[in-house]
Amino acid sequence: MNKAREFDQSVVAELKALLGDRVSTSAAVREHHGKDESYFPYALPDAVVFPHNTEEVRDVVDICRRHRVPMIPYGVGTSLEGHILAINGGVSLDLSQMNKVLAVHEEDLDAVVQAGVTRKQLNEYIKHTGLFFPVDPGADATIGGMAATRASGTNAVRYGTMRENVLSLKVVLADGRIIQTARRAKKSAAGYDLTRLFVGSEGTLGIIIEVTVRLYPVQEAMSAAVCAFDSVDGCTRTVIATIQSGIPIARCDIVCDKTIDAINKYKKTNYRVAPTVFFEFHGSQSSVVEQAEAVQALAKEHGGMDFQWATRPEERNQLWQARHDAYFACLQIRPGSRAVSTDVCVPISRLAECVHETMEDVKDYIAPVPLLGHIGDGNFHLMLLVDPAKPQETEIAKQFNKRLVERALRMEGTCTGEHGIGMGKMGSMRLELGDDVIDVMRDIKRTLDPDNLLNPGKVVALQ
Amino acid sequence: MNKAREFDQSVVAELKALLGDRVSTSAAVREHHGKDESYFPYALPDAVVFPHNTEEVRDVVDICRRHRVPMIPYGVGTSLEGHILAINGGVSLDLSQMNKVLAVHEEDLDAVVQAGVTRKQLNEYIKHTGLFFPVDPGADATIGGMAATRASGTNAVRYGTMRENVLSLKVVLADGRIIQTARRAKKSAAGYDLTRLFVGSEGTLGIIIEVTVRLYPVQEAMSAAVCAFDSVDGCTRTVIATIQSGIPIARCDIVCDKTIDAINKYKKTNYRVAPTVFFEFHGSQSSVVEQAEAVQALAKEHGGMDFQWATRPEERNQLWQARHDAYFACLQIRPGSRAVSTDVCVPISRLAECVHETMEDVKDYIAPVPLLGHIGDGNFHLMLLVDPAKPQETEIAKQFNKRLVERALRMEGTCTGEHGIGMGKMGSMRLELGDDVIDVMRDIKRTLDPDNLLNPGKVVALQ
Repeated sequence: MNKAREFDQSVVAELKALLGDRVSTSAAVREHHGKDESYFPYALPDAVVFPHNTEEVRDVVDICRRHRVPMIPYGVGTSLEGHILAINGGVSLDLSQMNKVLAVHEEDLDAVVQAGVTRKQLNEYIKHTGLFFPVDPGADATIGGMAATRASGTNAVRYGTMRENVLSLKVVLADGRIIQTARRAKKSAAGYDLTRLFVGSEGTLGIIIEVTVRLYPVQEAMSAAVCAFDSVDGCTRTVIATIQSGIPIARCDIVCDKTIDAINKYKKTNYRVAPTVFFEFHGSQSSVVEQAEAVQALAKEHGGMDFQWATRPEERNQLWQARHDAYFACLQIRPGSRAVSTDVCVPISRLAECVHETMEDVKDYIAPVPLLGHIGDGNFHLMLLVDPAKPQETEIAKQFNKRLVERALRMEGTCTGEHGIGMGKMGSMRLELGDDVIDVMRDIKRTLDPDNLLNPGKVVALQ
Repeated sequence: MNKAREFDQSVVAELKALLGDRVSTSAAVREHHGKDESYFPYALPDAVVFPHNTEEVRDVVDICRRHRVPMIPYGVGTSLEGHILAINGGVSLDLSQMNKVLAVHEEDLDAVVQAGVTRKQLNEYIKHTGLFFPVDPGADATIGGMAATRASGTNAVRYGTMRENVLSLKVVLADGRIIQTARRAKKSAAGYDLTRLFVGSEGTLGIIIEVTVRLYPVQEAMSAAVCAFDSVDGCTRTVIATIQSGIPIARCDIVCDKTIDAINKYKKTNYRVAPTVFFEFHGSQSSVVEQAEAVQALAKEHGGMDFQWATRPEERNQLWQARHDAYFACLQIRPGSRAVSTDVCVPISRLAECVHETMEDVKDYIAPVPLLGHIGDGNFHLMLLVDPAKPQETEIAKQFNKRLVERALRMEGTCTGEHGIGMGKMGSMRLELGDDVIDVMRDIKRTLDPDNLLNPGKVVALQ
């Protein structure tokens, strides 16, 4: 408490001198910035600032560094592993007002945006160009936040994750230096890949303030469908066969029967209650037809039932909105609950086995356990619903998750396909990559942030 | 010379105790390992070792570290910026005998190979699976070397570069620790992206000994064509329009009239002497036809003449072999010459302008200046032929290259699309990315290689 009070008197004064009323220490604002979508207890920053430009971010960093105050970059707070919790207090840098699209280069298929631009905002902005930004983690996250967590989502099977779709970053370093990690060329072999080093660094190595992203032409035809299967295994087999055939499928997401049931109740839809794959095909008119026919044939071989089609844009959007709403739909299975969301990703050949063993493991869980995932990437999520008032439930869920991570690692998988490490997966990452790799990461962290002020306690711990 | 003698007596003895006759200090072997395809003067290592496995590499590293001797990883020596020159002497680690394909996971579309496996060797090995490894820099380089230089080449426009196609690396660090940078899952958000940090690090941060690469299904149909244009600008406009239409073109390389003339002479082909684009289309039978028709229509709009088709595999291979032989064909424009090969890459919207200004600049050069490049990525090469006996010619070529780099940087491009930094582009990289970025790279280098023993004097200089 002493620390907090001391903080108020000096740092806040300096921040206010810099940003005026774009500094807040109100309980409501601090609380809003001290929680994410995870099951972690809230951890409030001492102050929240709303910078408008590069120089303001740099000046905030300078103030924080002089006072040795933690800095936590904040987008819209949709992360799932406690990424933005101010566990050591400090200043939350809310970048949501840095939300300008700075440039769209139609011929080069790229755009330069400030970190606070959300993916939907960008796609709305570039609608008239016939281009789109494909990375879609479900939530309307900021592109800065998505870069910082190496987000992916439903389109990754075809268009890649943020790793593949960021061309360059502007970053404010812990010592206030401002760097641009790369030029706008589509590829480069110029030195160490700092762009990729900051993508996925979760605000622990620098504060991402601008992102140059790749755009893609909206294809002539897009068509989506859902297909129910008699087993999860049938879903997996179909998708493996699809990918091996070289069919350039744009999206293929799996939901289990419990998830589909929750979606039906929440969205008043009437999908068949069974393991289901959501497909999407992009291409020319004829190639979409061809892809869809080929996948239907493969599905049929593996216990798939009829495809329910959505070809008009609004139908397609509805269908994917249903998929995206699965998270909130599933929370309603147990009203008032929060979710411990798992995130393992395994080689696709092991997916069916991993899902099968996992479903056995959770069958006695206190609540139904819905499954959903990006099956083409081998990445799936379980939602372990917990009553936040009963810490022992969270403990049980965490134990399940621990076993799941160990299972995925045995199968050459990763503890996190897309949610990131945050506070929740630090131990899992050590298990996954070994002490030496964690030591290398820690050495890099120490090199770039020797005072451990950038989002401390996330990704790797410094002593 | 004293240093070399001292070296002989102690280090070589230890290396021989470890590797027996797989240590060489013969002049011929050292010379072979002290030159690459660049214009730089030879710089011989003091010894060359041929390890067979991870433990031997680690033990060599331990010996070198104890004696503070530089270590230079070596694949097949096809790099173009002096990457493998032993400018401070030391030990060249020739990894070409670590050439086993360790695993092919057909369902997961990946393979694990030792660093010395070449790309053609891997493709031959997996031929029966219906999969292929797409990255193709022309030379039959080792996959370890390709990872180390972040190589790309003709397929990158569709399949990406080594950056996108490496899933994981096994690396021996300067202190002898052995790390695996990632699991085999297709995507991961687990911590800092060490895989991407080592891809493109050119042997300066660690020695890559195993690479897990992505594979792709061989498409049902593949078809290649060449098309002559009335101008380079027409080539560029056609390719921009192609990419903007979302046509998933697999390859599109440009060669100028001088290059095509050199190819004709060298390969006894009879391509029309004009700016020419080599195209390749992959997909289903019908989609390849559709893609080809669409591109032909676009080419026609921009001054393209008739397509000359190559659909049978051997014809396609011949066609691309002609393209790949362009380098050697062009050397024959001036027999006995070597080439200063430029490598800028610009946003594609600036490509025509960049090429145009550059051709103006080189029009008075001492020899014809052939152009070739990966037009879909905005990456092009000029071959500035120099007489190695006349250092002033190399100087003139370097001055041209310097102006070209400055021009590309003005157009938001990079000094190197795929050849890397080596010794040749350190100054250009500083110009491109600025002092602060170079400092960050240097800090990372120092963190991972504090004694500056890993390929010293490349990428970033340590004082």
